[in-house]
Amino acid sequence: MATSHTMSEEELKELYSFALDLGRRAGKILMDGVDMRCGDSAGRTETKQEEKMNAVDIVTQTDLDVEAFVKEEITKKYPSHDFIGEETYSAGSSKEYLITSKPTWCVDPLDGTVNYTHLFPMFCVSIAFILDSQPVVGVIYQPILDVTYSALSGQGAWQDDAHAWKKRRALPLINNPKAPIPEKAPKGCIFSCEWGKDRRDVEGGNMWKKVNSFVNMAAETGGREGKGGMVHGVRSLGSATLDLAYVASGAFDIWWEGGCWEWDVAAGFCILKEAGGLITTANPPPNPMSDSIQEVRLGSRLYLAIRPAGDTENETGRQAQERVIRETWKRVQGLDYTRPGA
Amino acid sequence: MATSHTMSEEELKELYSFALDLGRRAGKILMDGVDMRCGDSAGRTETKQEEKMNAVDIVTQTDLDVEAFVKEEITKKYPSHDFIGEETYSAGSSKEYLITSKPTWCVDPLDGTVNYTHLFPMFCVSIAFILDSQPVVGVIYQPILDVTYSALSGQGAWQDDAHAWKKRRALPLINNPKAPIPEKAPKGCIFSCEWGKDRRDVEGGNMWKKVNSFVNMAAETGGREGKGGMVHGVRSLGSATLDLAYVASGAFDIWWEGGCWEWDVAAGFCILKEAGGLITTANPPPNPMSDSIQEVRLGSRLYLAIRPAGDTENETGRQAQERVIRETWKRVQGLDYTRPGA
Repeated sequence: MATSHTMSEEELKELYSFALDLGRRAGKILMDGVDMRCGDSAGRTETKQEEKMNAVDIVTQTDLDVEAFVKEEITKKYPSHDFIGEETYSAGSSKEYLITSKPTWCVDPLDGTVNYTHLFPMFCVSIAFILDSQPVVGVIYQPILDVTYSALSGQGAWQDDAHAWKKRRALPLINNPKAPIPEKAPKGCIFSCEWGKDRRDVEGGNMWKKVNSFVNMAAETGGREGKGGMVHGVRSLGSATLDLAYVASGAFDIWWEGGCWEWDVAAGFCILKEAGGLITTANPPPNPMSDSIQEVRLGSRLYLAIRPAGDTENETGRQAQERVIRETWKRVQGLDYTRPGA
Repeated sequence: MATSHTMSEEELKELYSFALDLGRRAGKILMDGVDMRCGDSAGRTETKQEEKMNAVDIVTQTDLDVEAFVKEEITKKYPSHDFIGEETYSAGSSKEYLITSKPTWCVDPLDGTVNYTHLFPMFCVSIAFILDSQPVVGVIYQPILDVTYSALSGQGAWQDDAHAWKKRRALPLINNPKAPIPEKAPKGCIFSCEWGKDRRDVEGGNMWKKVNSFVNMAAETGGREGKGGMVHGVRSLGSATLDLAYVASGAFDIWWEGGCWEWDVAAGFCILKEAGGLITTANPPPNPMSDSIQEVRLGSRLYLAIRPAGDTENETGRQAQERVIRETWKRVQGLDYTRPGA
């Protein structure tokens, strides 16, 4: 059965084109949900049957509709492939890693649900295709902004690939020349992080560990008993998927987060790696300055991602990325997110 | 000379159209700076004369170019009007409120400079026109996303007004019906805040006051000695101007910030007010639950903005906005930002 797990370059290219198109078609369904809640251009309320549904109903229904649509399209085209979506998981009983070695689609129909509810544009459709446990195709589409981030393993990563009227840009965006990591990083870096849903006000809880880590990264150099990182900016968007896309594009230098699921990060993983970024675990090992930096397993729920980096006279991009990982590990606290039952 | 401070509705409409167009033309100059740093669509570096400039040079020069362009266009069309831009202020000696009763343009050629340096799309051009100390025209343009937020006093606020190929949407975006404020706000709200540049690690410094306030807003209900606000999400974009635009659109429910200057907020002020939002001071008065809620003065540097709100059976939108202001004041600490010399 080993042959069923390999695909030719031509097959993968076709699958990539299909995924790109599918992401944009799924995004149109999300936009229908947007239009339903907006009035006309003068701000007048339109009389529609859908008014009977409240905002939460509309969002929940749209989320389900998009997953059903994406699943159906994939099943029609690739009936032998596995499918993992948020709903699939919620309905299922598995407490294990969800990704097997089988050809698998891993889909988040709507990442950034809170943003979608409020019509803050930072929400997206996320579609990944996984072969031998590695995401080899990733598509992230922001429907309100009509922006796509995508990658095909071994071929590169792009913004707005195969877009009808936009110019395709390679990732990372800054290529002329590729930006090196700042010498005193995290100073000079944009640090991306999320407050998350775990808001228990207890010492040692995830909220407090996060806040302590954020403050270490933000505080003046020399502050926080030497841990002050004086990052250039702290950003929180409310979408793990888009955080990863922005690390791949170079917009964010460092993304540190715990608690994500496979469908939140699978597409972003592929895009980040193809762009030249590096991803490892959020939780510092016993010796942050010397322990080996291992590539994280999809599904580990703990992530630290660094943007693609240019070489300098003194170090390669990869060396600089490892330097930032260690400097971040020195400043952050380990988070408690495990698989359910693990 | 009183007549010089009034303009007819026709004159204001023409001025508004001019400002809309000017914002988009200024945005094109920012995009030239973007293109200069990106490679071609395959990620290859193009050989250009401009390669000699480093990223910081390009950003600084672009910032100056945009302000010079905007100032020249305004001076050509409205030679009798005053002009205030970031550069004007930095070069000037005034430590007073910058806004007089004279017809004045207040411009930030590039808000979100750090984002622009990293090509994170959350940067913008901000253009306001002020009459009798009130911003009566506001235009905020995000060039990478090609999105405009704008307003003309008494006429309304819009996303993408007079855009060549996009549908104009009235602000707030959710109009069908207009969203009420959550009953237990700040629970259920998106809270927008910024870490800012003051990172001194001292008790009583702005960073610590901000962090304490953020945590109060975020923590579980009942946590933080009763101050836990359990907001639905915490967002940080790195642009005060866009924070205000997103409050006006309804994407953010609450924006709380200190340290902004007139050019950061003048256009957003106009757009927020026209959309139906409310803005007051960030710093809680002695009696947060009973002291009067005063409209903030442009230039006060301390802001708390609440999104437009729908009425319910139990309260008007305005009553709900005042409720959220008081609930926020209960949870935040007063910040130290004054005028220089004040």
